[in-house]
Amino acid sequence: MPEFLHLISPSEALEILLDALPKSWAADIEVVSTREAHGRILAERVSAPHPLPPFPRSTVDGYAVQAKDTFGASGALPSYLQLVGEILMGKSPTLEVHTGEAAQVHTGGTIPDGTDAVVMLEDTQLIDGGEIEVHRSAGVGQNILLEGEDVQQGDVVLEPGTLLRPQEIGGLMALGITSVSVAIPPRVGILSSGDEVVPPEMEPGPAQVRDVNSYTLSAVIDRLGGHPILRGIVPDQHDALFEAVKQSHQEDDLIIITAGSSVSARDITGDVIQSLGAPGVLVHGISIKPGKPTILAVADDIPLIGLPGNPVSALVVGALILAPLIRRFLGIRQVLPTPQVLARLSINIVSLAGREDFIPVRLQKSDEGYIAEPVFGRSNLIFTLVRADGLIHIPPDATGLSAGTEVLVTLFSSEL
Amino acid sequence: MPEFLHLISPSEALEILLDALPKSWAADIEVVSTREAHGRILAERVSAPHPLPPFPRSTVDGYAVQAKDTFGASGALPSYLQLVGEILMGKSPTLEVHTGEAAQVHTGGTIPDGTDAVVMLEDTQLIDGGEIEVHRSAGVGQNILLEGEDVQQGDVVLEPGTLLRPQEIGGLMALGITSVSVAIPPRVGILSSGDEVVPPEMEPGPAQVRDVNSYTLSAVIDRLGGHPILRGIVPDQHDALFEAVKQSHQEDDLIIITAGSSVSARDITGDVIQSLGAPGVLVHGISIKPGKPTILAVADDIPLIGLPGNPVSALVVGALILAPLIRRFLGIRQVLPTPQVLARLSINIVSLAGREDFIPVRLQKSDEGYIAEPVFGRSNLIFTLVRADGLIHIPPDATGLSAGTEVLVTLFSSEL
Repeated sequence: MPEFLHLISPSEALEILLDALPKSWAADIEVVSTREAHGRILAERVSAPHPLPPFPRSTVDGYAVQAKDTFGASGALPSYLQLVGEILMGKSPTLEVHTGEAAQVHTGGTIPDGTDAVVMLEDTQLIDGGEIEVHRSAGVGQNILLEGEDVQQGDVVLEPGTLLRPQEIGGLMALGITSVSVAIPPRVGILSSGDEVVPPEMEPGPAQVRDVNSYTLSAVIDRLGGHPILRGIVPDQHDALFEAVKQSHQEDDLIIITAGSSVSARDITGDVIQSLGAPGVLVHGISIKPGKPTILAVADDIPLIGLPGNPVSALVVGALILAPLIRRFLGIRQVLPTPQVLARLSINIVSLAGREDFIPVRLQKSDEGYIAEPVFGRSNLIFTLVRADGLIHIPPDATGLSAGTEVLVTLFSSEL
Repeated sequence: MPEFLHLISPSEALEILLDALPKSWAADIEVVSTREAHGRILAERVSAPHPLPPFPRSTVDGYAVQAKDTFGASGALPSYLQLVGEILMGKSPTLEVHTGEAAQVHTGGTIPDGTDAVVMLEDTQLIDGGEIEVHRSAGVGQNILLEGEDVQQGDVVLEPGTLLRPQEIGGLMALGITSVSVAIPPRVGILSSGDEVVPPEMEPGPAQVRDVNSYTLSAVIDRLGGHPILRGIVPDQHDALFEAVKQSHQEDDLIIITAGSSVSARDITGDVIQSLGAPGVLVHGISIKPGKPTILAVADDIPLIGLPGNPVSALVVGALILAPLIRRFLGIRQVLPTPQVLARLSINIVSLAGREDFIPVRLQKSDEGYIAEPVFGRSNLIFTLVRADGLIHIPPDATGLSAGTEVLVTLFSSEL
């Protein structure tokens, strides 16, 4: 429809914004203990100071042997080997195993010198006279984890920009790396403008509403790895807003202004953003619903986002613009897949061509998988979102989706 | 195959464990500021102290009118209405609008007495003499958000057991609820046994390895909303392990023991768990790979999990057993969908019937969506997991999956 035809798509809008930011718009670095680094973004390249495993290890409970001594062994025709000792866990083996001999070894234990295979306990029989019967032939290297099989000494194991998940924390600890350099989260200044808006702890007057968006956004930023700075509610006056935004501009890495909902409030927000620094407003309006009146700007190397004052827009623009922006700041290099679940649509949905629609849905579990039930509600109603588990996306070339269609639901709980 | 036939499935194992826990095994409650409550689990029922919106509001910029005054209006034959004033944002309207009159109103502004519709600015024309032309007929209620349209006074808006996402934080703030009761995270004691295991900050001797699992698990627990308590490394001796587990039993809500990898270490772990209290070991072995030797137990109302000492098992059992256990403790009532992405398998995979296989995969983005590339590596290699983005699950009745099959990849970054 005409109202969306002159607007640009969310991906184009994001590209314009990212292109206008200098390389220097990036996180500073701090050193933290690896134990505390879960969920942070690595800011250095990590190489292995030694191989992993650091010595050849058995992957089973059994006997370390020379493989050739077991060739052709079977239950009917076992090989007989002399048991020469046991490899104790955590102790360096002192014994050497020769042809015709075997040493008992546990899972994770060191492979003693002179052996090249481990036969499983189940394939052996301990007999009198300190001998074992081997009932199955073992190949060279069987049940042995080689030194460096996981990582060789000097291997680059982690690149800068890596999200540190539980396994990365474990991997760093395995290598004895107990502190790491990580990116410092961006300070994201959040300003709420609007003459009708009061703080949550205040009893609103007859025509006033409480500030919802600052807190919704603050939680979104927290989840995305940013550091929200609540800069309060500013009246719909150019000078007051300009001063507040200027202070945020001096102290924060990224500024979000949720506009008051009147025309004049939106105009004032646009003017203030434009007057703050070069190049100014880059995008004014995106072909998404909700979120159309979004403003994207850069002022003297600091990005600014002007958001329409409703919570669904805050979440949608949060996912489409804010998440990649924070990732860029933190230097995240990985493609982090967006968590989604597959579901069937419960009813028909109509959409306008040329516009990307994001519709909140509630998920119900059924025997045939998830059912996605659209939660219809106006985008300025916060409890519409409380009733929803995620969003479905209707691309610009679609005019709707039929009931029963398989859709991917982007989950609120993880990405938004 | 035979080795798995006598084992029980992960869902049966979980049910046995949950059934053995008393109702009293549940989180205590604390009151926190709503601003700090993001990601916590609500522990009280919240009702709306007032309706939302608290007064009828305009959803557009335009003029509040009596709908009947616009019936039949068009561009060729407009209705003419007398403009009697402007409704200021945040101020209670003092004017009353009569038939034949209109008042200017902004998005979010209060609907003045006497009106029942708002005509959009675009459908009007301001003319001389303080009159407006209306070019389009408005229906009763058009462009008006009714008082209580989102939430009525007294409505239950949030139930205990709700995960507080950004939108719940916003919804609470909209109602002026600035502090809430939430569940206190379970203390999860983590013990590492094994004569070959040393702390990460130590230089391992010739047959020693660093503790990886305590830190991997600690991060998993952190992500699941638990409070990890690192109880250190305990030698593979019954008395030492018993004392360490007993102390954790007195102070923690849940205990995880990652066993040393030798047979005797595993035996000692089983014995210690069994001797700690009634009913003791409930499950010894689960039909999953990796994770088969997992022990589930309850001792005097405290659950214990004995894990095989490798990191993939820790993550798999973390997702299948630990996550639902922590959810039960926190009282989470919602079905939290597991974040997944759809991908196509890059190669054939074989699996044994009767066993649930979990295979780490790396995701690659292609023009046709994600490609899931199995990261083959033994389950005791931590960097196998570092190279993976998630797991695919092969159900017990499948003997494998062909290249090109569509698979759901459960993402590590969000659920595990």
